[in-house]
Amino acid sequence: MKIIDGGVTSAKGFKAAGCAAGVKYENRPDMAMIFSEKPCRAAGTFTSNVFKAAPVLWDRRIIREGDGSVRAVVVNTGIANAGTGKEGMRLCEETAKKAAGVLGISPDEVIIGSTGVIGPQLNMEAIFRGIETLSGQLSDTREAAKEASIAIMTTDTHPKECAVEFEAGGKKITLGGMAKGSGMIHPNMCTMLSYLTTDLCISKELLQEALSDVITDTFNMISVDGDTSTNDTLVLMANGEAGNEEITDHGTDYEAFREALHHVALDLARQLAGDGEGATKLLTCHVINAEDVNKARILAKSVITSSLTKAAMYGNDANFGRILCAMGYSGAEFDPEKLDIHFDAEGFSRITVYSDGDRVLFSEEEATELLKQKEVIITADMKEGDAQATAWGCDLTHEYVNINADYRS
Amino acid sequence: MKIIDGGVTSAKGFKAAGCAAGVKYENRPDMAMIFSEKPCRAAGTFTSNVFKAAPVLWDRRIIREGDGSVRAVVVNTGIANAGTGKEGMRLCEETAKKAAGVLGISPDEVIIGSTGVIGPQLNMEAIFRGIETLSGQLSDTREAAKEASIAIMTTDTHPKECAVEFEAGGKKITLGGMAKGSGMIHPNMCTMLSYLTTDLCISKELLQEALSDVITDTFNMISVDGDTSTNDTLVLMANGEAGNEEITDHGTDYEAFREALHHVALDLARQLAGDGEGATKLLTCHVINAEDVNKARILAKSVITSSLTKAAMYGNDANFGRILCAMGYSGAEFDPEKLDIHFDAEGFSRITVYSDGDRVLFSEEEATELLKQKEVIITADMKEGDAQATAWGCDLTHEYVNINADYRS
Repeated sequence: MKIIDGGVTSAKGFKAAGCAAGVKYENRPDMAMIFSEKPCRAAGTFTSNVFKAAPVLWDRRIIREGDGSVRAVVVNTGIANAGTGKEGMRLCEETAKKAAGVLGISPDEVIIGSTGVIGPQLNMEAIFRGIETLSGQLSDTREAAKEASIAIMTTDTHPKECAVEFEAGGKKITLGGMAKGSGMIHPNMCTMLSYLTTDLCISKELLQEALSDVITDTFNMISVDGDTSTNDTLVLMANGEAGNEEITDHGTDYEAFREALHHVALDLARQLAGDGEGATKLLTCHVINAEDVNKARILAKSVITSSLTKAAMYGNDANFGRILCAMGYSGAEFDPEKLDIHFDAEGFSRITVYSDGDRVLFSEEEATELLKQKEVIITADMKEGDAQATAWGCDLTHEYVNINADYRS
Repeated sequence: MKIIDGGVTSAKGFKAAGCAAGVKYENRPDMAMIFSEKPCRAAGTFTSNVFKAAPVLWDRRIIREGDGSVRAVVVNTGIANAGTGKEGMRLCEETAKKAAGVLGISPDEVIIGSTGVIGPQLNMEAIFRGIETLSGQLSDTREAAKEASIAIMTTDTHPKECAVEFEAGGKKITLGGMAKGSGMIHPNMCTMLSYLTTDLCISKELLQEALSDVITDTFNMISVDGDTSTNDTLVLMANGEAGNEEITDHGTDYEAFREALHHVALDLARQLAGDGEGATKLLTCHVINAEDVNKARILAKSVITSSLTKAAMYGNDANFGRILCAMGYSGAEFDPEKLDIHFDAEGFSRITVYSDGDRVLFSEEEATELLKQKEVIITADMKEGDAQATAWGCDLTHEYVNINADYRS
């Protein structure tokens, strides 16, 4: 597997575009489109929130019940089309029909994504104008992928892309994707909005299996604010343009694909966590030597979700008591007397702050310097088994409060 | 039942004191004592956190295994004596021994409470000095109760007390208490530190039963930051000085006591929520007409725990989408198409923002004015049954981040 500079247009046969359609704000990129001439098999995972946004219901139906022919994705920011009742569902359908008409495909081949404020109805004049503009700008260049990734941003501070190449059936396969955060991020089955494209030829069942498999340790292990969105959507499209023989079993080719997919999903998930609303740093929590992997996941996620731990990390304060506390209330049982806690950062020696259930004297000054880095790694050694898990989050900052106290105005 | 101005010294035979012992800071009240000449029966509930602070382990042993003779409470702020290993347990025991020596009672009659930074060991010189000062200042006056309630504050902005009178067995009974917040508040079995005193005579079993019963809808329904502390302790002491015949069954007298206890617990819990770290307002969420009470509790607590909802309330932003979202990911199943959401505040007409699963047009200006009040009430009408529950929280503010990014320095 080789990491390349790319995004949703890296795989053969995929075009993309981004534009400023004026859905909620003027002169700000707010609509994106992905298009594949050849029909794609698609896999997806969606929010577990009881309130599912209209586009989530639309996409889920297409991916679960459709015949595996997806050719376009239309995404808007500004308005989430969630909590919008039957009228919201109708506007989602109209969006798909408009895109289908312009692109010469069926509405059931159009995946819809919306993100933004919950409650208001879509501004259809802007949406229609955007679809027309986007369809005229579709391109398979690197720039087009970048523009699409910029157009799906909301409070994100930078676009999030990733692409890799690998081999399957003697052919070069490419897999690329984009994602956006950065608030209401606590994915439970997938993240806010993420679209992955590949030219691999693979059965629909294995495509979904690989996706469901990799999200457990990637998108589902990040959190910005503990709030699982109504719009979480992760869609993976495979158009088969690479020309490999269709993958239909769990052989070497499937494993190569799974590895590539895991890399892209993990890379995008880490980008989402590190660019959480208001974040100044990425927090990584490794839980090692746990009794079982489920326990390790619960513990790691509890640490990176704790408001008090996140605020301490913002203040570069090695307040390990909050880490203990978050592990202790996570719901996972463990022996607190065995626990070790370490802090790490690139270019710094490890600082151990807690060992065998007791504090360790350490230099507060050195710890403060370590905690100022862009990625801080907390390792909790449970010494109870050999399972491990990692979760990613960010610090809780004044800017998070600024952004969210005044989101709609 | 009659509400009176009072605290831990209101019930007959209870004395209290508060002083500045210099445990962590100089010239700041940081130690409190409660004393009853007559032995008390005691009931308690403690944190469910796997990491239990040394004083929690100490108190739990006394209350669960003891013969029901408790006579004193010693509390310090500044250092939590949590995550302190065997040495922390030894220092807790030394504290009890010192207090017992000074007061002429047994160490097993001394309840210990600590709150503050997790990790450091207690400063025993200050603790011993404090115990000596406190024992010389014990008094049954209203002022003494107030001083004790001030001495247990950490980031609280005001002391929290409550007291009531009621009748049992033809005698006037008094019940009073104090509590402290205001960070790491997401009680699971009880709150940070709260001490209640009564002169009622009641069997130990019924005392514990009444306490366990009332916390479900009071202390266990508040949250400031979702972080369940290592030190949560609620202790209720009954010395029997009122002279009523011992309550040994669930008759009228037990019900009168239960009602009084519920009032005091609810009042203190609401005070804790409204004075959460950095809070500018109290958030109350009523979930009504739910299918069952457990579901109602989960939904109400999810709303007042959501960071995004809390930040919107700080910004006086009627962003009901975040309330929908928090209900949707709570884990409770319900029909989103039936839901109504209303905002209320004292002196304002009700504003309905969501009805039958769809948004309602409302005046943003009026909503902003309503949300500026000191208590904002969110009512979610599920229209699925007749169960209800209420949870209390506070807004998420810049000051919360200030306090917690820099807690230890």
